[in-house]
Amino acid sequence: MKKIINNANDVIDEMIAGLTLAYPDYVKHLPTDATGQGIIVRSIPKKEKVALISGCGSGHEPACAGFVGEGMLDAVACGPVFTSPGVGPILEGIKAINTGKGVLMIIPNYSGDVLNFQMAAEMAEAEGIKTGKIIVNDDVAVMNSTYTIGRRGIAGTILVQKITGAAAEAGLDLDAVQKIGEKAVANTRSMGIGLSACTVPEAGKPGFELAPDEIEIGLGIHGEPGVIRDKIKTADELTEHILVDYILKDKPIESGEEVAVLINGLGATPMMELFIVSRKVHDILDKSGIKIYSTNVGNFMTSLEMAGFSVSVLKLDPELKRYYDAKARTITWRVCCQ
Amino acid sequence: MKKIINNANDVIDEMIAGLTLAYPDYVKHLPTDATGQGIIVRSIPKKEKVALISGCGSGHEPACAGFVGEGMLDAVACGPVFTSPGVGPILEGIKAINTGKGVLMIIPNYSGDVLNFQMAAEMAEAEGIKTGKIIVNDDVAVMNSTYTIGRRGIAGTILVQKITGAAAEAGLDLDAVQKIGEKAVANTRSMGIGLSACTVPEAGKPGFELAPDEIEIGLGIHGEPGVIRDKIKTADELTEHILVDYILKDKPIESGEEVAVLINGLGATPMMELFIVSRKVHDILDKSGIKIYSTNVGNFMTSLEMAGFSVSVLKLDPELKRYYDAKARTITWRVCCQ
Repeated sequence: MKKIINNANDVIDEMIAGLTLAYPDYVKHLPTDATGQGIIVRSIPKKEKVALISGCGSGHEPACAGFVGEGMLDAVACGPVFTSPGVGPILEGIKAINTGKGVLMIIPNYSGDVLNFQMAAEMAEAEGIKTGKIIVNDDVAVMNSTYTIGRRGIAGTILVQKITGAAAEAGLDLDAVQKIGEKAVANTRSMGIGLSACTVPEAGKPGFELAPDEIEIGLGIHGEPGVIRDKIKTADELTEHILVDYILKDKPIESGEEVAVLINGLGATPMMELFIVSRKVHDILDKSGIKIYSTNVGNFMTSLEMAGFSVSVLKLDPELKRYYDAKARTITWRVCCQ
Repeated sequence: MKKIINNANDVIDEMIAGLTLAYPDYVKHLPTDATGQGIIVRSIPKKEKVALISGCGSGHEPACAGFVGEGMLDAVACGPVFTSPGVGPILEGIKAINTGKGVLMIIPNYSGDVLNFQMAAEMAEAEGIKTGKIIVNDDVAVMNSTYTIGRRGIAGTILVQKITGAAAEAGLDLDAVQKIGEKAVANTRSMGIGLSACTVPEAGKPGFELAPDEIEIGLGIHGEPGVIRDKIKTADELTEHILVDYILKDKPIESGEEVAVLINGLGATPMMELFIVSRKVHDILDKSGIKIYSTNVGNFMTSLEMAGFSVSVLKLDPELKRYYDAKARTITWRVCCQ
């Protein structure tokens, strides 16, 4: 294992320290008792609005901490590498960001995360904090997976966080924000392809092996298997396969309708290759008469140094578009005012 | 070679297509006759100001196209992978962005780039376009390298582009913008470490080999050797070595002075590891009494899927700080208005 770390046991603590030292105008660390885990919260003073918390295991950076800030999230719980954050930290986060308008949880669908967030919500409710939840299940690769009942939540989660965060920032109440978030989930589909495994620091060796000419179609962001292990194909064939045979089959989009697209690198994929995927995505959607309102290309939700990519498509309507375009000021996602 | 591409000969064309389709509000493609190469220019209408052009071989994405836009560059020339852009495309770019106020070239120091930019400038001058140049040589690893006379230009180039772009946007004349740019270069130092090689698509195999426990200290962004091939050390040791023994030795910074820091991933380095480096950089500078005004952590100037990182330090003064903070609206670097 060749990694730029000090000690495998300290990676979360040291990452959170380096992150909050680098971006003090955006985020601060709310240490919690129990573990080295913690909560990342917005640096700017709390605003009276519905508060949003999300979270996931670490190793997916910039997700989730990169999306904390004005117009997106108020807090994220950072778990151990590829492991759900604990109930304690989540509860601390909920309490820290609540301003009396309620707290909405945006949870990528993994059984451990859903369970821990729900337990924390029950404890928060017992203390008089109103909570709601949105479960993101954008990955159309497999119906159930190693860690989920139902579809997994992957990079499309970022689009849901953007939309929902803007609705909360606009001052909508908890039920209305949750409804917008649920619409964003209903309109988002993703699917990915893996070219190589990654190594969890504490494990010290790759989670699986792929032959030099092998890829995994529909791979999950923790290395969980997808649809099939196949031979490497051209970028155009791979893109067409996941976009046409999976994403658009699961969520048909009519000619004339508008979408936002997210082309996400899993960690070790050169942007050159992501742009080559972008070209084909545009080609396919253009030919179908589907209008691409916005495309983002880069590393948004990674799996350490895994090579591969995912494509996410969010079907827009005027309401979702307004929230998609709203100002956001986070480490990774910035929509500037004009 | 396992890459998400179609044909090794088409990667530049297809990358540029995917990039400009994804970000039409930011950039457009100005095709040039000769080759598959091209010039990426700002989408927004030309403004009467000093125009800035930069460029480099491809494979360093998001550099350089990710920094084209308001407050930074007006155009970049994208060469073949790891190869200088040709004289023809550079000249086309200069002509396309000139508004009569002159064109300033920001050139990372590699002999091929310097030669081609200079030749293009002479041809532009012959057509009555006033030009100036800034050569960025921030890499303190080695005095001369495989591809340079003098020090190389690496990720610190982005900081120079930010400062110089803001000065041009503020309406300064060519000489004044060049002077600001030269000050930014004089105040910027960088150094990197490589953990693995990368594969140029047309070559089909890695440019060099490192043993499982080996790293290259001072590695260049095209795989050119650095100071020494060494055994992997802890993140703290590596960071201290390059920051204290190289960067701060070459450019002493006094207690109380302010700096901007850029922690750059080379392509396959998890952000988790870059944040661990960030922690140590802050620790070292804090203890020296050096104030960190701003830190940016991410992939800014990569080498395809190479693993490793670089640290850049820019010493600030009130003038540089003003330009550093100025609004920027590019694909990769956005400074929003409040």
